[in-house]
Amino acid sequence: MRIAVLGTGMVGQTLAGRLEELGHDVTVGTRDPEAARARATPGESGTPAFSVWHAEHPRVRLATFAAAAEHADLIINATAGGASLGALTATGAENLDGKVILDLANTLDFSHGFPPSLSVANTDSLAEQIQRAHPTAKVVKSLNTMSCTVMVNPAGVPGDHLVFVCGDDAAAKAAVVELLRQLGWAQGAIFDLGGLGAARGTEMILPLWLSIMQKLGTAEFNFAIARA
Amino acid sequence: MRIAVLGTGMVGQTLAGRLEELGHDVTVGTRDPEAARARATPGESGTPAFSVWHAEHPRVRLATFAAAAEHADLIINATAGGASLGALTATGAENLDGKVILDLANTLDFSHGFPPSLSVANTDSLAEQIQRAHPTAKVVKSLNTMSCTVMVNPAGVPGDHLVFVCGDDAAAKAAVVELLRQLGWAQGAIFDLGGLGAARGTEMILPLWLSIMQKLGTAEFNFAIARA
Repeated sequence: MRIAVLGTGMVGQTLAGRLEELGHDVTVGTRDPEAARARATPGESGTPAFSVWHAEHPRVRLATFAAAAEHADLIINATAGGASLGALTATGAENLDGKVILDLANTLDFSHGFPPSLSVANTDSLAEQIQRAHPTAKVVKSLNTMSCTVMVNPAGVPGDHLVFVCGDDAAAKAAVVELLRQLGWAQGAIFDLGGLGAARGTEMILPLWLSIMQKLGTAEFNFAIARA
Repeated sequence: MRIAVLGTGMVGQTLAGRLEELGHDVTVGTRDPEAARARATPGESGTPAFSVWHAEHPRVRLATFAAAAEHADLIINATAGGASLGALTATGAENLDGKVILDLANTLDFSHGFPPSLSVANTDSLAEQIQRAHPTAKVVKSLNTMSCTVMVNPAGVPGDHLVFVCGDDAAAKAAVVELLRQLGWAQGAIFDLGGLGAARGTEMILPLWLSIMQKLGTAEFNFAIARA
């Protein structure tokens, strides 16, 4: 499948690298490809500079947001949540029309300290904002409730933990579920919450996720549900 | 222990009944005890009228918010989240001074449909509001991330599911942890998130909890964490 991964940070690198390994035709989209190629300093939390990562993943192409999305069947929004709407505007409505957008971003705002707040929450969600801004795209929210290492390697965390998925278009959701299966998620670990409004709930779990991460001292965990 | 349970609804009834069974001296607090005694119609979702429930739990006393809290060592806020600040104002600062307040309420607002929003979220929490309104009380947030039947009977849901606890006063948190242990929570199932600011995270999990409940068709489940 031709996949555009928007975002050159840790999440974008991790998704793009794994999807390319799985045989997909992957293009990473960024605002300024030349700037991304030139950047040589590591990002926060030790993320390799994109140029360093790219040298190790030569089959992944790098392009502008628009060029990456233009020929893609599925577009993954792995930009920082606060920048996602701008990145998708730069991608262009014509390159998103009819496409599946898998949104895994969170609008974390650390400007007021820890725990962070969300810049969109409660009565709206980033996923719904994206859907309203691009009504002919098919937005699916998933994978945003865990670290990117768990996204692409669910078996790295033992037990019956879950990935939530929601969206208003059944076919788009099915395409995302198929991608989740390829990433290693068992069918029973994929929890369909229904329509895209449920993204409010999965985005709002982030502050708790961060508190738990801080207490455990690791991001290598995931939410599960015990039931009677 | 002398415990005041504020609130006559399903959560208040369930907590008060179980704590009385465990040997505690329990008084349920309500705005108007005579009105509560006179109410004969069941509440939403089949909750028994308080008078019916009370006839089956004659050792639980009923009093005003203030009278219930006056002699209590620990006060449980089991009122509806949107009414909690008013209920605690009616309880009176003199009856809350130095006391532990276990807050298990959520500010769910269904007035805009499903999924509900929260009337306090993201940059604040109900627990912090209560603490600010009653600075000499010791507020602990816990048990708000599950149905009341699971609160008092964790073994009813199999597996290693969790109860979160947070608060700024270590002794108050220890008192609540002791109560959780009496309710059947194993030490390893009690996840201390730290200070009261973490209540934002546990309160914000409610929309997701409700979406999951709707999909599972039951409230008999709870969150768990799988970790590497």
